[in-house]
Amino acid sequence: MHSLQFTTESSSNGMVERDFTVGDVPGVLWSPASGAERAPLVLMGHGGGAHKKHRAMAGRARRLVTGCGFHVAVIDAPGHGDRPRTAHDEREIAELRAAQAAGEPEGPIVVRYNARLAELAVPEWQATLDALQELAEIGSGGPVGYVGIGLGTAIGVPLVAVEPRITAAVFVCTWPDALVEKAKQITVPIEFDLQWDDERIPREAGLALFDAFASEEKTLHANAGRHLEMPRFEADSAVRFFARHLDRPVTSPAGR
Amino acid sequence: MHSLQFTTESSSNGMVERDFTVGDVPGVLWSPASGAERAPLVLMGHGGGAHKKHRAMAGRARRLVTGCGFHVAVIDAPGHGDRPRTAHDEREIAELRAAQAAGEPEGPIVVRYNARLAELAVPEWQATLDALQELAEIGSGGPVGYVGIGLGTAIGVPLVAVEPRITAAVFVCTWPDALVEKAKQITVPIEFDLQWDDERIPREAGLALFDAFASEEKTLHANAGRHLEMPRFEADSAVRFFARHLDRPVTSPAGR
Repeated sequence: MHSLQFTTESSSNGMVERDFTVGDVPGVLWSPASGAERAPLVLMGHGGGAHKKHRAMAGRARRLVTGCGFHVAVIDAPGHGDRPRTAHDEREIAELRAAQAAGEPEGPIVVRYNARLAELAVPEWQATLDALQELAEIGSGGPVGYVGIGLGTAIGVPLVAVEPRITAAVFVCTWPDALVEKAKQITVPIEFDLQWDDERIPREAGLALFDAFASEEKTLHANAGRHLEMPRFEADSAVRFFARHLDRPVTSPAGR
Repeated sequence: MHSLQFTTESSSNGMVERDFTVGDVPGVLWSPASGAERAPLVLMGHGGGAHKKHRAMAGRARRLVTGCGFHVAVIDAPGHGDRPRTAHDEREIAELRAAQAAGEPEGPIVVRYNARLAELAVPEWQATLDALQELAEIGSGGPVGYVGIGLGTAIGVPLVAVEPRITAAVFVCTWPDALVEKAKQITVPIEFDLQWDDERIPREAGLALFDAFASEEKTLHANAGRHLEMPRFEADSAVRFFARHLDRPVTSPAGR
């Protein structure tokens, strides 16, 4: 088992940012600047082509850390961020770009590539969670949340299906093809976001993925708009979801 | 035009409750106990068989009044609460009970009866809104919201379709059959709640009603569970929806 090594630390506006590695996987841990008490942990999976500190990750982390006092960790997916691309990564990305340029369907390539990345990433996340729970300010046995966007959902659904330490999850819809069978194994509370007018992912496929979760508590949030037009208030809704399920009150007015 | 006559007034825990009549329509207006300043108004439509002060109405009103400082008004639907039943009401209710007792579909009866009640109730709501806007603490020209549950949605969809003073609405799904064409005329922001495992209203019909709204901003909240199992956090979500759209911050922690 690899332990967690912190590399750099900085702080701004009530939030401490610490880069870390677990083995050769780089990550970032955002924490409240004040209060050394133990607090719940939320893991976040970034989208395809993005990285651990993409603004979608940093923005959601700030809401969770300063609004609820949670710790938030993100790792770079294989071939993303500070991690090297393999020849397989390069081939898949080239094929994806060619399909996009030709106006051909990108779904089959993304589904195949993301499924491969998920196979690699699930054990990386489990090792990262092992190492994060060695930290005194996180500890083991506490509630753990997961947020996934795009690729982060393609990784997160199989992760949550096999990882009993994760007790609640927010998934932003991605191509569901490879995920339905894994979703049927998930019983923890779920908030599931999709775009009603998504021009990439068929509406029926997204609804079928939501339907597949075996969770007794699950909520679908479907908003009018295209793939990239998800309203910002859904990030606030995710904060409240974790405040309910990870047992922390919302302390700042994220409610607007 | 009938003016608004207050009949009784009481107060508890920061909320003033005033019963009123507009013509022969009885209603209730809930307002913040402190602060005479002008504030937005939310109209609420109660469910079938319920009445203006049903706990679903009083509970939502408390959240809106004490959480946001709004005024909230509910009127009894025709044949409901303090209003007399006509022979037509009695016939429809007897037929509904017979269908329920026989295990036959109630939908066709409810759809037909609710559509008739909506024809009567829409002009009643418009007259009530005229009268409420004569009050100094509400005034005309300010934003107005609408919340409908069941019958309150069957009335609210045609009301919002024709009433430009209503600028945002929350609808809890009801049988959508008679409502789809009216929904196509609605362009204001909508939050639409349905139960994913509703044993009375077919899922596809509910999704088709959500799809029909012409609103640029519309959000579907679908929760796991049966018809009567909508989670309480959706009432808090409705408060935040109006806080966004009627321009009032949430002042109490309704966010949990």
